[in-house]
Amino acid sequence: MSASCDLAIRGGTIVTAADRFRADIGVRDGRIVEISERVEGAAEEVDATGLLVLPGGIDAHVHLAQPTSDGTVMADDFETGTRSAAAGGNTTVLPFAMQIKGTSLRDCVTAYHRKAEGKCYTDVSFHLIVSDPTPQVLGQELPALVRDGYTSFKVFMTYDDLVLSDAELLEVFDVARREKALVMVHAEGHDAIKYMTRKLEEDGRTAPYYHAEAHAEIAEREATHRAISHAQLTDVPIVIVHVSGRDPMEQIQWARKRGLKVHAETCPQYIALTKDDLKGLNMDFEGAKYVCSPPPRDTDSQAAIWEGLRDGTFELFSSDHCPFYFQGAEGTGKDNPRARTSFKWVPNGIPGVETRLPILFSEGVSKGRISVERFVALTATNPARLYGLYPRKGAIAIGADADITLWDPDRRDTIRQEKLNHGSDYTPYEGMEITGWPVRTILRGRTVARDGQVEAEATGQYQSRGVSEAVA
Amino acid sequence: MSASCDLAIRGGTIVTAADRFRADIGVRDGRIVEISERVEGAAEEVDATGLLVLPGGIDAHVHLAQPTSDGTVMADDFETGTRSAAAGGNTTVLPFAMQIKGTSLRDCVTAYHRKAEGKCYTDVSFHLIVSDPTPQVLGQELPALVRDGYTSFKVFMTYDDLVLSDAELLEVFDVARREKALVMVHAEGHDAIKYMTRKLEEDGRTAPYYHAEAHAEIAEREATHRAISHAQLTDVPIVIVHVSGRDPMEQIQWARKRGLKVHAETCPQYIALTKDDLKGLNMDFEGAKYVCSPPPRDTDSQAAIWEGLRDGTFELFSSDHCPFYFQGAEGTGKDNPRARTSFKWVPNGIPGVETRLPILFSEGVSKGRISVERFVALTATNPARLYGLYPRKGAIAIGADADITLWDPDRRDTIRQEKLNHGSDYTPYEGMEITGWPVRTILRGRTVARDGQVEAEATGQYQSRGVSEAVA
Amino acid sequence: MSASCDLAIRGGTIVTAADRFRADIGVRDGRIVEISERVEGAAEEVDATGLLVLPGGIDAHVHLAQPTSDGTVMADDFETGTRSAAAGGNTTVLPFAMQIKGTSLRDCVTAYHRKAEGKCYTDVSFHLIVSDPTPQVLGQELPALVRDGYTSFKVFMTYDDLVLSDAELLEVFDVARREKALVMVHAEGHDAIKYMTRKLEEDGRTAPYYHAEAHAEIAEREATHRAISHAQLTDVPIVIVHVSGRDPMEQIQWARKRGLKVHAETCPQYIALTKDDLKGLNMDFEGAKYVCSPPPRDTDSQAAIWEGLRDGTFELFSSDHCPFYFQGAEGTGKDNPRARTSFKWVPNGIPGVETRLPILFSEGVSKGRISVERFVALTATNPARLYGLYPRKGAIAIGADADITLWDPDRRDTIRQEKLNHGSDYTPYEGMEITGWPVRTILRGRTVARDGQVEAEATGQYQSRGVSEAVA
Amino acid sequence: MSASCDLAIRGGTIVTAADRFRADIGVRDGRIVEISERVEGAAEEVDATGLLVLPGGIDAHVHLAQPTSDGTVMADDFETGTRSAAAGGNTTVLPFAMQIKGTSLRDCVTAYHRKAEGKCYTDVSFHLIVSDPTPQVLGQELPALVRDGYTSFKVFMTYDDLVLSDAELLEVFDVARREKALVMVHAEGHDAIKYMTRKLEEDGRTAPYYHAEAHAEIAEREATHRAISHAQLTDVPIVIVHVSGRDPMEQIQWARKRGLKVHAETCPQYIALTKDDLKGLNMDFEGAKYVCSPPPRDTDSQAAIWEGLRDGTFELFSSDHCPFYFQGAEGTGKDNPRARTSFKWVPNGIPGVETRLPILFSEGVSKGRISVERFVALTATNPARLYGLYPRKGAIAIGADADITLWDPDRRDTIRQEKLNHGSDYTPYEGMEITGWPVRTILRGRTVARDGQVEAEATGQYQSRGVSEAVA
Repeated sequence: MSASCDLAIRGGTIVTAADRFRADIGVRDGRIVEISERVEGAAEEVDATGLLVLPGGIDAHVHLAQPTSDGTVMADDFETGTRSAAAGGNTTVLPFAMQIKGTSLRDCVTAYHRKAEGKCYTDVSFHLIVSDPTPQVLGQELPALVRDGYTSFKVFMTYDDLVLSDAELLEVFDVARREKALVMVHAEGHDAIKYMTRKLEEDGRTAPYYHAEAHAEIAEREATHRAISHAQLTDVPIVIVHVSGRDPMEQIQWARKRGLKVHAETCPQYIALTKDDLKGLNMDFEGAKYVCSPPPRDTDSQAAIWEGLRDGTFELFSSDHCPFYFQGAEGTGKDNPRARTSFKWVPNGIPGVETRLPILFSEGVSKGRISVERFVALTATNPARLYGLYPRKGAIAIGADADITLWDPDRRDTIRQEKLNHGSDYTPYEGMEITGWPVRTILRGRTVARDGQVEAEATGQYQSRGVSEAVA
Repeated sequence: MSASCDLAIRGGTIVTAADRFRADIGVRDGRIVEISERVEGAAEEVDATGLLVLPGGIDAHVHLAQPTSDGTVMADDFETGTRSAAAGGNTTVLPFAMQIKGTSLRDCVTAYHRKAEGKCYTDVSFHLIVSDPTPQVLGQELPALVRDGYTSFKVFMTYDDLVLSDAELLEVFDVARREKALVMVHAEGHDAIKYMTRKLEEDGRTAPYYHAEAHAEIAEREATHRAISHAQLTDVPIVIVHVSGRDPMEQIQWARKRGLKVHAETCPQYIALTKDDLKGLNMDFEGAKYVCSPPPRDTDSQAAIWEGLRDGTFELFSSDHCPFYFQGAEGTGKDNPRARTSFKWVPNGIPGVETRLPILFSEGVSKGRISVERFVALTATNPARLYGLYPRKGAIAIGADADITLWDPDRRDTIRQEKLNHGSDYTPYEGMEITGWPVRTILRGRTVARDGQVEAEATGQYQSRGVSEAVA
Repeated sequence: MSASCDLAIRGGTIVTAADRFRADIGVRDGRIVEISERVEGAAEEVDATGLLVLPGGIDAHVHLAQPTSDGTVMADDFETGTRSAAAGGNTTVLPFAMQIKGTSLRDCVTAYHRKAEGKCYTDVSFHLIVSDPTPQVLGQELPALVRDGYTSFKVFMTYDDLVLSDAELLEVFDVARREKALVMVHAEGHDAIKYMTRKLEEDGRTAPYYHAEAHAEIAEREATHRAISHAQLTDVPIVIVHVSGRDPMEQIQWARKRGLKVHAETCPQYIALTKDDLKGLNMDFEGAKYVCSPPPRDTDSQAAIWEGLRDGTFELFSSDHCPFYFQGAEGTGKDNPRARTSFKWVPNGIPGVETRLPILFSEGVSKGRISVERFVALTATNPARLYGLYPRKGAIAIGADADITLWDPDRRDTIRQEKLNHGSDYTPYEGMEITGWPVRTILRGRTVARDGQVEAEATGQYQSRGVSEAVA
Repeated sequence: MSASCDLAIRGGTIVTAADRFRADIGVRDGRIVEISERVEGAAEEVDATGLLVLPGGIDAHVHLAQPTSDGTVMADDFETGTRSAAAGGNTTVLPFAMQIKGTSLRDCVTAYHRKAEGKCYTDVSFHLIVSDPTPQVLGQELPALVRDGYTSFKVFMTYDDLVLSDAELLEVFDVARREKALVMVHAEGHDAIKYMTRKLEEDGRTAPYYHAEAHAEIAEREATHRAISHAQLTDVPIVIVHVSGRDPMEQIQWARKRGLKVHAETCPQYIALTKDDLKGLNMDFEGAKYVCSPPPRDTDSQAAIWEGLRDGTFELFSSDHCPFYFQGAEGTGKDNPRARTSFKWVPNGIPGVETRLPILFSEGVSKGRISVERFVALTATNPARLYGLYPRKGAIAIGADADITLWDPDRRDTIRQEKLNHGSDYTPYEGMEITGWPVRTILRGRTVARDGQVEAEATGQYQSRGVSEAVA
């Protein structure tokens, strides 16, 4: 190789979604230019002896700096959120640009760009959230935005300020098919949840735990089936995001068995938590630390999620990072006066962008449930392929961005809030023992984090995206 | 037997939902008082030699004298409708008392009683249709009506003037559970149908046939799953009525396999018609004669329906008699100016109360697909049990009303409009060859019809109903 | 009714497989001649006020007076066995005429007739067991015996002295199709059981309990699938007898869903016992009291069996009565020197003809799991229909034999060996609380047992049988 | 890179089982040492511009130089067979070392080595065929052979001279578990096939076509279920080879859904042929060209196989190359006097090692049914992983053998016998249009074939194998 490299990563074991082998990696101008027995003459060298060399994590489901309808403050902006992501082994995150009802989607996108610019420690790209599918949005803004590289959007089947009717869902799906965009669906039945909420409140069951009963698995399964049916009718591929348990998972398997184009994502909370966590200590407000939607289910659902991670039902493993403060009047906890009146006022969401990869590695790879290859597929290659970032991202391959995370598979550590970089004042995984930890995160050839600490400038860039492979 | 009988039915083969044997039946005061080798000393004798002696048919799904939102005139009132029913071997029909939005349900019931009184050739009882579940209806009228013997009500998931939202469905189900009523569900997804309708209209596909594409099986399956989920959440048994094909049927099987309390009904149009019938001659208005909702599907769906009739998935076989005129400006056909502009204006419904039993007997029993015993279960015993009429109705048993139909299993005839008693000016089954025909219909011991002709006064009575066995 | 009756059963509630009503029953010459509000002028009257009047139980799976290959003495001959059956509410039992290898099947049949003649307290009929399908047996004896009214035969897929190879099974099935006989299959994989037995013995696991591990559910499921496949290939209906759990049951459901003609039987041991019972007290020989094949499984399998009893997967509920002595050198217990060396020498079989009906009534009807109507179907009507005894047996219908059992649904009692009439010196159901008990057994109009005690002569008759409804 | 390369493959698009990117490959001493933007200074250069650069094909199911019990001569020895394989894009094949009953397995292996030595154009390794599992074989030979690198063996459930009883299968599986070997199963029910054969012969149905009826899909499904059950009982992973249709495939899916360790292989004949091909012209002997076991099924089974290839049910796509001559007295055709008397004498097997990859590429990749990545997985990476050849074989990765095939995805050609290198005198795929063809086969850095012609010496080497990843 005549042209010398800027960086050589030496002596590690490279793992892709298919293969595993010892080799050096040579990087020039932020891209991988050589994979070989020995890279010579690099300006900088990183010793990866004894380490796994994986594509940098892509967290395809992250909420940052979103306003909430009730004024709750999100605990992460782009700076803290991507700092946390990088420390946790990620090189790209995909937050949402959320339309607020009554406003232009294009304007929302512009606003999120402004929030992100110059603040990011990982690369970023935006999914759109469509909450107000006006003729203007459907007919002009969405088509233009897709063409501009915002090739995926998310719709909600619940939440008062986001829920779309079936008629609206069908219209959005119809646009997605025409414009070759990929739709992500938050599948929970709104009216069912409201019915359950009212029933529980009438019975005086207002503690945070009852969030898990209100957001019944039946309601998630029903909405999953409904979304699949709408997708079938409009002939458009969809992603069911954050699948929590066996029942909705089986709907997805049923659909795929019939040849329907249904993709699926799951998250750490569905393998590492159960609804019993929402009980806190004796049904107290500690439980509020685990309130997210859909909520964690039970151990049988955890087993089901593992089956789905193994057999390919789930192609994506994301964090659904949605960080709030536990303490304070605007937090999720007992200081929030409204939350004290009912679980329904507890903000829905938990932090997780920094712990996603260690949890899957430890519970999955280290415990022998999945191979490292599948770990790579779930956390990097598949997100890149499904969301139009491939082959620039998601692979250790010649020409790809040198987004690389080095893993020490034997490193053991315990998750502690004080070690994390996110903005929240707690982690739902406090005290969890982890075997296997990212020890260096390299973004386009530059080390951005080491041993859980960010050590570079905020050089993350916005990534315009191509058409999803699910659509093409 | 000392007390003499008013009527002896001699020499026939009695078939119940379980057993088959030769015996005479003795009737006194309208009730069966004796089943024996030989009934002596009856005032009147009916010779049933060579005939099958079955419980009179109960048609649990009949629309009579309903107003329509667009002013279309229904072709049967209670007189012609029950005349037609009796001629077709039925002794009881269950029409609907339909609430019109903005009106009191109790008032609607009263109005239907007025329409029916003194006009009926069969016994009748009313299901309620809840189209406007106001707090008054949910909190007071429904509970009172259930206690008064209106123990079943129907809800619609489509039709602009009837559709309930998911929130409303859940409320109605909730009342049903509390009051021990049985809910019947018309399961088709409203928004999906409207989406398909708009798409088809945009493509210029407005002929009656496109009704079958607009009312896609996907939309029926989705709504079936949704109704099942709502029922599961509210812990209430439901009946999915007029199931048309394999896809929704498999949802029901899936639910029952899980132990959910889901019952199901199918109808003659789903074994005797296909959507190709809606094509008429070269996509013309002859197709309008077959427009009903859900529409007939294809031959695989017919095969599926037979599987379900055999294996017990379907407990009910009803007509969904909903008769319109084909001719005239208010009919379903080409004289209707609005219907010419789009299939969506073709009134949904076909006549069938008179042909239901012969079609099932001929296609089912005579062709060896089901036993006579199952025929009895599907058409008499099960409807009586599920809708609170048992044991007064639905059985040949001591103490039961002497509602008995004599069948000649060998009689062959062709369905012809000119032989029928209904109000419609056509039958969708014109020309169908039938083997096995009801030759005498006996209502509470009195012969009301012979060989397809009514020959008695209108002595049908209203039947207050008890709690469904599905609920008890 | 002019002709007077020999017997009137007054005031009870008759229940058939479909219907339930209050009526008197009139009997003449051993047959039911009248069902009416009031039977007058009978020579004898039985007061059934407050009782259920059901068709007498038909136990379609009973082993009596069979020789065993190892010389173990069966604890019941025809006298004690049918006495026990009658006391337990049965009016007909179907034992086996078992061919011994190397002997003529016809001669075996003759020998069993000789054993039974004049000894029976219930009516009896014989299934054949084909253990040596020589050309003579296949080509001449079986066809002739079927024509003589032995219309069902059983084959074994395990037991050294009974097992047929796949080739032999296919030949027997082929004869069954041609001769319109119904084949019953003992479905357990012989080689799998032997493999497991050897492994367990090598590990020193020789206690009676290990019988349950050797006879693994996998081996039963595999043999069930294999039998179904052979039946599909030869196009012949079969009955899988004594299905023990979820796994083999699901094979049967799968087959029926595909339209295959597979019928299924289960037994009391699979709802009232689990394999833990075989552990006895600390893995001792008490466990030998529960050794039967297939063995009881676990509580999930019990739940599965109940699902199958409810949804019609199981059409038959028989005892598989196969009684041995627990004590003595030829018994199943610790006095048997060979049994002490390995579970494989413990005779396989438990007594149950007397407790079958009370157990199903109590656990099923009284606990609300099944209706009385289904109880009748499972224990009388279906066995009669499937084994060619209908309509003479299995129904309360005009012309049928007056085989009637009166049940007191409220009577509570405990199963105790000292109250039973069978020949065994123990019951595996010792101490079980039963609600609902047969209080009078009437065989062809004559009371043979009351309150668990036989009180008539041995008037049971042999019943020649017609073609099974499964075949016709 | 200081050390220069022996070979550079320039400008192609590398595709692995996960990734796709443009890069050069550098080879030294037969191994891949560099993958980079540009490999400099190689002694030899291959221009791959516009071509796909894939891991060389591994055909894991090939029969070469096997004797047959009836004296039929196999059309390929190791020379012609591996020549044909190399021309068809393969770099490794796995033939069988078949034990002949009554002989030592070790001796058989030695004999096959002798046949292969110095004759091979691809690398080779042997699966063992166990046909006589004596205590000597089970206890000593198999364990020793596994330790020597023969880590997989195949068992047959049919064929008179190969079939193992269930008892023998269980013993072999038991050894496999202990020794960490992988068992391959030919799953067809022997007795069922013999039964069908006799029936067909009795009916005079002896033409080659009836082979497809004798080898019924039911028999394959049954044996598949049985093999799975034996594997479950003995807790050992297995590979069901040459799965032909939907029915056996669904058994495999059912097993995997339950977490059982069942792997599956399918073959070109099940996507490119149907049983109608066996009809030849008017049921003549042309049909004998397609006789293989299991036989091709129907178009629905082809669709099922594609589903299974897409969804991962099938991890292996092999040829089951088993070549015979069509002409001549020892061939499969009309010159064979015994074959004229019955299909059962037609040798079972078709040639396919040379056409396997083009057929899957053309029908799969070119027609858009599967991705190139999955093609690589099915034909190279998975066979290497499952049969203990990875990472030396099956990957384009640093350190792997430089076994590489260049594909021209646009090249169109027709399969013609005269172009093929195999020993048979016909191909069952005559006239099939193929888009996408291997244009160069490189074995350990040396080009062995170009454009369908072998152009190197027979430098193929024997490969000792490690433990299967399915076992580890």
